[in-house]
This record gives sequence, structure tokens and C-alpha cells, in this order.
Amino acid sequence: MNAPLPNEVLPEIERRPVPPAMLEALRARFGERCSTAAAVREQHGRDESPFPVTPPEAVVFCESTDDVVAVVKLAHAHAVPVIPFGIGSSLEGHLLAVQGGVSIDVSRMTRVVRVNAEDLTVTVEAGVTREQLNRKVRDLGLFFPIDPGANASLGGMAATRASGTNAVRYGTMRENVLGLTVVTAAGEVLRTGTRAKKSSAGYDLTRLFVGSEGTLGVMTEVTLKLYPLPEAVSAAVCHFPTIDAAVRATIQIIQMGVPIARCELLDVNAVRWVNLQSRLGLRESPMLLMEFHGSEAGVKEQAETVQTIASEMGGEHFEWATTPEERTRLWTARHKAYFAGMSANPGCRTVTTDTCVPISRLAEIIEISVAEADASKLPYYIVGHVGDGNFHLAYMVKEGDADERAVAERLSLQMVRRAIAMEGTCTGEHGIGLHKMSFLVDEAGAGAIELMRGIKRALDPKNIMNPGKIFAL
Amino acid sequence: MNAPLPNEVLPEIERRPVPPAMLEALRARFGERCSTAAAVREQHGRDESPFPVTPPEAVVFCESTDDVVAVVKLAHAHAVPVIPFGIGSSLEGHLLAVQGGVSIDVSRMTRVVRVNAEDLTVTVEAGVTREQLNRKVRDLGLFFPIDPGANASLGGMAATRASGTNAVRYGTMRENVLGLTVVTAAGEVLRTGTRAKKSSAGYDLTRLFVGSEGTLGVMTEVTLKLYPLPEAVSAAVCHFPTIDAAVRATIQIIQMGVPIARCELLDVNAVRWVNLQSRLGLRESPMLLMEFHGSEAGVKEQAETVQTIASEMGGEHFEWATTPEERTRLWTARHKAYFAGMSANPGCRTVTTDTCVPISRLAEIIEISVAEADASKLPYYIVGHVGDGNFHLAYMVKEGDADERAVAERLSLQMVRRAIAMEGTCTGEHGIGLHKMSFLVDEAGAGAIELMRGIKRALDPKNIMNPGKIFAL
Repeated sequence: MNAPLPNEVLPEIERRPVPPAMLEALRARFGERCSTAAAVREQHGRDESPFPVTPPEAVVFCESTDDVVAVVKLAHAHAVPVIPFGIGSSLEGHLLAVQGGVSIDVSRMTRVVRVNAEDLTVTVEAGVTREQLNRKVRDLGLFFPIDPGANASLGGMAATRASGTNAVRYGTMRENVLGLTVVTAAGEVLRTGTRAKKSSAGYDLTRLFVGSEGTLGVMTEVTLKLYPLPEAVSAAVCHFPTIDAAVRATIQIIQMGVPIARCELLDVNAVRWVNLQSRLGLRESPMLLMEFHGSEAGVKEQAETVQTIASEMGGEHFEWATTPEERTRLWTARHKAYFAGMSANPGCRTVTTDTCVPISRLAEIIEISVAEADASKLPYYIVGHVGDGNFHLAYMVKEGDADERAVAERLSLQMVRRAIAMEGTCTGEHGIGLHKMSFLVDEAGAGAIELMRGIKRALDPKNIMNPGKIFAL
Repeated sequence: MNAPLPNEVLPEIERRPVPPAMLEALRARFGERCSTAAAVREQHGRDESPFPVTPPEAVVFCESTDDVVAVVKLAHAHAVPVIPFGIGSSLEGHLLAVQGGVSIDVSRMTRVVRVNAEDLTVTVEAGVTREQLNRKVRDLGLFFPIDPGANASLGGMAATRASGTNAVRYGTMRENVLGLTVVTAAGEVLRTGTRAKKSSAGYDLTRLFVGSEGTLGVMTEVTLKLYPLPEAVSAAVCHFPTIDAAVRATIQIIQMGVPIARCELLDVNAVRWVNLQSRLGLRESPMLLMEFHGSEAGVKEQAETVQTIASEMGGEHFEWATTPEERTRLWTARHKAYFAGMSANPGCRTVTTDTCVPISRLAEIIEISVAEADASKLPYYIVGHVGDGNFHLAYMVKEGDADERAVAERLSLQMVRRAIAMEGTCTGEHGIGLHKMSFLVDEAGAGAIELMRGIKRALDPKNIMNPGKIFAL
């Protein structure tokens, strides 16, 4: 057997104990909102990554920026790690307390601070989830498009630079966060950005924190762009004889500049398992699930263009879902693909890839990766935000089976190397966490990592903000 | 007389001499491409800001990333400032050699390194201008939309996070730079980003360098997004009884989500001077100059919506320019507004504001600022990328007249404070340079500035990269 890959095992880092004095101070301020119960700690020491549970020493349920400041100031004084925690839907080990410390749970910070409908902006506390936000603004004729599938917290989405369906048209968290309230490593409150749509005022601190995975500060409020609900929306399903045909149709749709709002690929396994889970009765072949936003005429025009392209690629059984109920049913099924995969393969954990490549290379990377996955005999499925060149190949490995895990990780590594050689990235939207740290070195190079380290040291000299993630210090 | 405002005078910083050994080494490597001629140095010690010429000690005309590395390595060894120079169109004193040093002129780095039409990306050397790029990709059916007016270099545009017309639809340099080649302060070559459309891989170094105004490194190559040329384009001019009516029409267009490509305001002075300069024969009243991109039907639909909104606000004389020649004539005139202002006010320099506010506050800030400008008796005009909430009030002040300059700077300061109170920014697209350093403190706050300083010190410990700009160290 080969030695385990760096992303198969948790890095060995010394845990830094929380001194009794700090724990006492936390209890004094937070009472029952500071928990050291095993169940609570375990729930905060895991995410959807394939790593073993690695709990923090304590969890503090914060209800305000001031609460976060109080925790961070204590952590700073005692040089104890803190790990921001939203709803726990991250995929790469971001939340695991590999150096111990305190989990800062912001899930009770659910206030929508201010909606400025006339400016298409909103400020929310970090624990507000995307579904909560959309329920709040729907009646104003507005919506927030970024949709990673999970009903994630907006703080967590900003921290991992999330995207998902809709990004092909509306961009990712990178493009949709206007400003942040951040608690720095020293426990200072910092506001970045403004509510203006653009700015050239100094370094782009907002974009520096977006995607920093809690390693530079704890986000407590996020100011976001909103969009008017489109006048017309329609969704369509189109089946293809091969996955390659579906991908080639996508490439052409993008290259022609069709402003498609969602363009999702499901391979035959994903369709099959989603059918099982959600009783959808979809034809079991590779398919694209698409959505169009615009005026009535605009949506019709987009759909016609896409239908023509799809037909040329052998697409058939173009089925429309124009009622909100039908659309919701389809998208809910898509979002449940992850759980459908788990439920069709009981006792398994998922090792998920997240490569993103220039659109012209998408067919090639998927073709090779499918051939490798087939040869491995591991169960797998593919879903993808293919309009962005981003897809997930999810290998199902038996929980605790080191050999299967090793096979999956090796396939994942091969795919990442391929994506990097194609000028793509190892992670389109999930982030680095613990699981992709070695990939980041391959992708960004030693010089860029050293620069990131320099920034980290400047902003967090005691290395207390989610330490051990993204890169080794 | 009050004491001069911080933005009226150049900060007093000690100049750091270029040691003879460094000058000799530069001459040995670059021969005639290293110039110390007074005329060359003076041309590199100015921009379009109202500050006096402040030349570097030498100018090196670089032709490759290796050339830039050679200059920076010498500068690093001798702790000498370097100032990247594109075409010299910046507006806020970015290029002035306030601490002496060497100007790194990249205007000969004009290679389009690689067009990937099928991925809608291009990589250019930093000295390629936006017009050069567009000439290069037009035959492929593609274009690069960011258009700050001046035919600026793409390196300079990235360094100031530029935008201009078209940003309302296509975003700014923030959204359109995919990756960079940067020479760091130590003279290392760093590549940031990939050609993938999105990524969650580590800190967003690309966005950190975009807008850093040469203070963190010298950009030598820029990878950009391209867009398919729209199937249909039409431009329209609409006149309004008051500037307020024009702005209110804009606000409604944006709030309704019309995907307008350009939405530019010209006040009556701008129209008058543009008429004088370009013999356009436009009606002399406040006007919006708009452009629509899309399919034939889409453009028609957008235009109808906009026409209805404009009419409700008292807009009249909606005139269409559908031929490319007519459109070019209009946009060229718009882009020449700056020079039209100068030519209508001989012997004057321009003090230009660049505030950007949430769209709902735009009418209010323009109304107050116009009243103040009228009361000042200084000649002025207004042009604005009003779809983004960004506008420029340009005061014409007699060259060398300290009193007029002081009046203009005080009005500018008042407007900036107003914009910040409205949750806007002191600069939508021009950057901070020397001229807006005090404004950045007001806008971002001491904590954010301290964080920027920390990043600067980490990346440029000898403070050689365009020192003295954005913030005092």
C-alpha cells in the first residue's frame, strides 16, 4: 500500500488547551450559552468532509457582534484558537478543531439588519441563511441568487466564497458581497466596503475576507446585493444520449453568450439516485437542468436558442416546468443529490471533487474522469454547475474503509492535477479547508502561498483565527 | 485664509536618492532604455491630477516581465522606490515620484499574449491599451467592455480598479480580471488566479492586487474576461428639463432591473462644451446617453421600457443612434468631455470628484453639490456613470491660483463627506493616489487603514513599491 496522501489524514498539529481562566471568563459572560457538553462539542467538530470528528473544547453561542468580540478578546489574550461556525454544511474540514480552541457559533445571529430595497442591498447577521433571507425579501419583489444547495449561513457562504447554481448568471459571493463587519484577531470591529456598487478606495479588504475561511477574522454582518425578481422564469430539463453531448451543448450555450440563469448537469447515476430519493420519474440518462430569467419575451428567446443548440447535440425530451411548484420540485431534487447519493449507498461517506476549468476544457476533463471513476468500481455520481466549468464527482466510500478512501483520494488528486494543467482550479466553490491544502500548493505555487502566509501573520500574529486551515503556517 | 487641506498639497516625504551604482547597473542592462533626460523624467512625473510635476530620477522602458524583475531586484537591493507607469492617464497623483526613485514604464509591453476565444479570456501584457485589445479581438466576435474614457493601459486600469461606461452592466476591473502576473517587491514573479471563471482556492490575491495602485507589486500581465459582441446594439440620447429628472429616470431604470449597458449623465455645461469641441449640435439641456446590448428583440424591449420611464420623468427628444458611426461619434464626444472642459476654460486645471453612492441617494447628492458648485462661481461640469451611482463634478480652476484650487478642494471635501454619510465611497473608479488619501481615512476608518498598512508591510517591507500613495506608512 502507498503512503496516505496528505489529504487523507488530518495534519498533526499540537492542540492548544483552553486555560481554565478563559473557560471561567466565558462561563461568567455567557452562562449556558457557553457549552462544553460532549454532544455539542462533537456537533461542532464535524462538517460534511470525510475526516473524523475533531471537537473544540467549548462552544459559545453568540448573539451579537459584541458577543463575538468578547470571545475573540479572551482568545487573543490566551492565544487560543477560535473557529467560526454557521450551520456546519462545509465540505472540506473547515470546522474541525485541529488545534483545539473554541467554536464561535453564529447560528443565533439571524437578524436581517436592514433591507434597502431601493438600492438593491441588504445587511444581515452572519447566521442568516440564504432561505431565510429570500423569505424576507420576496414580498419586496427581490431575491438573493447565490444558491450552493445547502441552506447555508450567509457568513459561511462569504467565508468560503460559495456559489452554486445561478452563479453562471449572477456571479459568486465574490461579486455579491458589498461589505462586511469583521471581528479581527485582536477583537476589534472592522467595517469593510460601503453600500456603493463600486469603489476604488484602497485595498479590497472585502474581497480579502471573502474566501478566507475564518482564518483572518470572524464575519458578523454581511452586506449583499439583491436583484429584482425576474418578470418571467422558466425551467427545462433536457436529456442527452451521453454526458459528453450534454457538456458540449453547455459549452456552446456559454460561448454564444446566452444569459442562462442556471445550467446544471446530472449524470445518469445522479438522476437514478435522485429519482429514488424524490420519486421524480426522470428518464435515466445524462441531463441538463436549466433555468431562464428575464422578460417574457427574453425568456422565450433564450429558451429557443438553447433548445436549438441542445437538439444539435442530440438532446431530446425537452420538458418545461413553468409553474413555481414544478420548478421547486426539480431544484429541490437537484439540491438533494448529495443526500440521495448517501441514501442510495448506505454506510458510505462522500469524497467530493470541486474542480473548475475554462469552459472549453470541460468535456475533456469530464470524459477522462468518468473513465477513471468507472474503472475504479467505486459508486459515484456527477453533478455540476457546468455553465461555469465547475463540476463535482462524488465518490461513495464505505465509512472507515481506508482502501476505498485512498482510491477515491487518488482519483481526486489526479483530477485536480488535470484541472490545474488545464489552467483551472482545485476548488470552484467549496474552499480549501483541511482537505485541499496540498492541492492549493500545486495550484497557487510556493510564492503565492508565502504571500498568503505573510498576510495571515500580519493580520493574526498569534495564529488564533481558525488555525491550520488553507495552508500550514 | 484657512490652512490648506491635506489634498491640496503634496505630502512632505524625504526623497530617497538612486545610488550611482544602481543607475550604472540600470544603464548597463538597459542602455538607452534607461533615461535620465529631463523631458522624459518630467513626462513620467505627472498625470492628470492638479499637483505639480514631480519627476523620478530615472525612467526605464521595460519590454518584458524579466526587464521589470531586473529593475525591481536592483531597487530592492538599494531600497529605492519604483513607480509603474502605463500611459499616464491617472487622475489622483498616482504616478508622481514623491519619494524619488525609478519609473517603470510598461508602455512598450504591448503583446497580446494569448486569446482563448472559446473560453472568453485573454492574457495581455500590462501596457496593452483597451483600444488595442478591442481591435485585436473584434474579428473574433468578442470585446472587452471596461471603458474608463481614456485609452488607458490594462495594467493601469487593473491597478486603479477602473470602470467607466459599461460597468453598470459588465462590472469593473474587480469583476473582469481573472488573474495577474505580478513582480513582487523582492523581484519574484508571482502568478495569481487561473483561467477558471470562479475559484475558492485560498486568499483572493488577484483582487488584492487589483486596486492596489502599484503599492504591492508591478503587474506585468493581466488575464481578462471577454464577451461576445452583442447581436444588437443601439444608443439613445434623451434630454431632460432638469438634472434631477435625468437622475430620477436613471434610478428607476436600475431599480427595475433593466440590463442597460451604458447610462451616462451629462449636465448642461458638459453638453455645451462637448458641442463646442465636437460640433455635435446636441440640445443644451441635461441629458442621458444610453446604450443597449442584446438580441434584436431584447434591445427593442429594453429601449421601450427606458423610453417609458424617461417620458414619465419629463424626458423628451429621445434620439436614436443605431449605426456604428453615429454611436462612435456620441461616445467619442462623451469621452472627450474632460478635454472639452479644459479647452472651453483655457489656462485651467481640473479638480475632479469621483464619489459613488447607493443609487437611491444619487439625486440628493447631485442636487446639493450642484447648488454648492453654482454658488462657488467656479466653472464646472458634471458627467456621470449614473447607473452605478457614480458621477464626476469637475471644477475648473486657474492654473496656479491657490484660492480657486482651495475653493474646489473644499467643495470636493464636502461632497466626499456627504457621500460617506450616505454609505457611499470617495472614489468610484479613479483610486486614492495622493489626492484622496485623507478621504480614505474618513471612509475606511483607522482600523481598516491599519490593516492595509499591515498588508503593505508584509508584502513590501522596504516600502519601495510606489511609496507614499493610498495611505501614509
